[in-house]
Amino acid sequence: MTATVPPSDVAQKSSLSPFLRNAGVRFPVFQAPMAGGPDSPALAAAVSEAGGLGSLGCAYLTPEKIEQAAAALRALTSRPFALNLFVRADPPRDAAAHSRAANELEPLRRELGLGAHPPPPRELPNVDAQLEAVLRIKPRVFTFTFGVPRREQLAALRAAGVLVMGTATSLEEGRALEAAGVDAICAQGSEAGGHRGTFIGEPERSLIGVLTLTRQLVTKLHTPIVAAGGIMDGAGLRAALELGAVAAQLGTAFMLCPEAGTHAAHRKALRSPDARHTVVTRAFSGRAARGIENRFTREVQGPAAFPHQQALTAELRAAAAEQGRVDLMQLWSGQNAALLRELPAAQLVAKLVQEAGLQGTTPGP
Amino acid sequence: MTATVPPSDVAQKSSLSPFLRNAGVRFPVFQAPMAGGPDSPALAAAVSEAGGLGSLGCAYLTPEKIEQAAAALRALTSRPFALNLFVRADPPRDAAAHSRAANELEPLRRELGLGAHPPPPRELPNVDAQLEAVLRIKPRVFTFTFGVPRREQLAALRAAGVLVMGTATSLEEGRALEAAGVDAICAQGSEAGGHRGTFIGEPERSLIGVLTLTRQLVTKLHTPIVAAGGIMDGAGLRAALELGAVAAQLGTAFMLCPEAGTHAAHRKALRSPDARHTVVTRAFSGRAARGIENRFTREVQGPAAFPHQQALTAELRAAAAEQGRVDLMQLWSGQNAALLRELPAAQLVAKLVQEAGLQGTTPGP
Repeated sequence: MTATVPPSDVAQKSSLSPFLRNAGVRFPVFQAPMAGGPDSPALAAAVSEAGGLGSLGCAYLTPEKIEQAAAALRALTSRPFALNLFVRADPPRDAAAHSRAANELEPLRRELGLGAHPPPPRELPNVDAQLEAVLRIKPRVFTFTFGVPRREQLAALRAAGVLVMGTATSLEEGRALEAAGVDAICAQGSEAGGHRGTFIGEPERSLIGVLTLTRQLVTKLHTPIVAAGGIMDGAGLRAALELGAVAAQLGTAFMLCPEAGTHAAHRKALRSPDARHTVVTRAFSGRAARGIENRFTREVQGPAAFPHQQALTAELRAAAAEQGRVDLMQLWSGQNAALLRELPAAQLVAKLVQEAGLQGTTPGP
Repeated sequence: MTATVPPSDVAQKSSLSPFLRNAGVRFPVFQAPMAGGPDSPALAAAVSEAGGLGSLGCAYLTPEKIEQAAAALRALTSRPFALNLFVRADPPRDAAAHSRAANELEPLRRELGLGAHPPPPRELPNVDAQLEAVLRIKPRVFTFTFGVPRREQLAALRAAGVLVMGTATSLEEGRALEAAGVDAICAQGSEAGGHRGTFIGEPERSLIGVLTLTRQLVTKLHTPIVAAGGIMDGAGLRAALELGAVAAQLGTAFMLCPEAGTHAAHRKALRSPDARHTVVTRAFSGRAARGIENRFTREVQGPAAFPHQQALTAELRAAAAEQGRVDLMQLWSGQNAALLRELPAAQLVAKLVQEAGLQGTTPGP
């Protein structure tokens, strides 16, 4: 190549971000929340201790459990961390759809040795009550998906000194979040594993690659952007910064860390060539989410809406995991599991920073 | 952000690529082939003159027309350029599927003032004969999608001093191309507009974001990788280089250039907010391709296989374009049309280079 490249101005761009300074992180590496298994207080604490931003998905936890998890995290680190919630607006249960979905699951339940009918569903905790727990805990950062908290809730978080980051899967959503006055926006690229954060339109219509989405949000908005989806190493992190993101958020990359709560069979699937084929499926929860394609994602075609399908499959998912049945397990993964490394979280953060050629200095305030 | 970044080693990485040196380009900017309209000898020549690699999609041209187009290109520039073909293996025409597809199109044909039945299809030119034309022309670079030329065809191209670049949408395909001994591989990210190059498995299962796909191919293979999909500006180009690509290939970015053959109504659609919603559709050609969602992509649900649907819709697409009916036109676009700029191609290449901070030196051999 007959071209030369002057020094990168990534440092200059990111060094100007008050968001990262205020978040008190040393490196632009956020660990994505992965509610319901892969994330854990131990993982979040290790990432935060290493100079990144650890994160805990609290979507399925009661307010009491959220406070317990945050206490566990604080026992392990005095560094800043993030808590994450789903800002849900659950649709009422549709009896006919529910019954069809239950019927479809019946043969799979039997195959796992379960009775024909799932136990009565445990309702997901009330979002307002969860948010109040977050307000009591006052994490340095609160992140959310699936929607936007109400104006007074955002104001209360801000008054409590909590930084707020919403999740966008499209430019429209980015604009809605900026209008709500968030401190940062996570650009969730189509590559990302787990639930799609989409809250305007259908998630399947907002599968925009992280390079494209990040660049659109950086160019059209004024809010700091955090890039998420498929970022696994220092080159990916550097690419995110070149696109104008202030940080990269990595989920799948942390799933094999010993501190992660990732199930053994899930770990095995992530290491296997199967992980190359992921799909965006509603089969497990009723909401679109990216995971490794398996028999369950192929066979379950008529799920109920979220969170009703989530409740309908709860016992089945637990039994499948218990029995190590990767064909029926929920195997969330981003598109880039092929580049997964199995390292303690602190070493992984250090490696990302080293590969990206980033040099940390003293922690922010 | 309390981190500092040392100078980028992008220059070093890309300066080592014999592929770009041999291709004789000054800047790591390739213009994507866009057969059937948007590309043109004038566009390819302008890009090549500006130091990038211009490209002409020849998939729908007879051998004679390919030679005419190459002559037109050579009349405009003495710089290297690329010719592109589809390495097709057309399935036989399925009479029942064909008839269903024709019936589905009938009301749309009538709406455009056409007769109930399309005229007898013009067959696409024979690929071997197209490849022989390319061999006679000896472009500096030959690029292909949809498959891999036969061993003796690749050997003949190599013997003629033609560099060869295949297209991969997955790691599996990248491995197949590397095994075939290509000189470079285009990593076609899910963001890219137009036909998906997929040749192993279903295209809809190979929608991998460009950041992820590029990084996988760069990490797992030894062949130079060219990143494509959603790259619109210098930041995107720089991100591609950070990921280890030796160049970026841009299609949509060039579609508003005055030299492009893009239809006026297509240009209008690309500038409109409609361009934010693209879909991967088989409705127009029978092969999966990304374009702006419209009534045609929503309503046509049972297309025949490629190239039979392509033939069935030929007259309809021409009439829709003629009448400026964006609801029924084929509107190929990548996911990042929101960042489109309307500039002469030479200015666009210069802007990309300047934004990316790349400094060209003397052309290669």
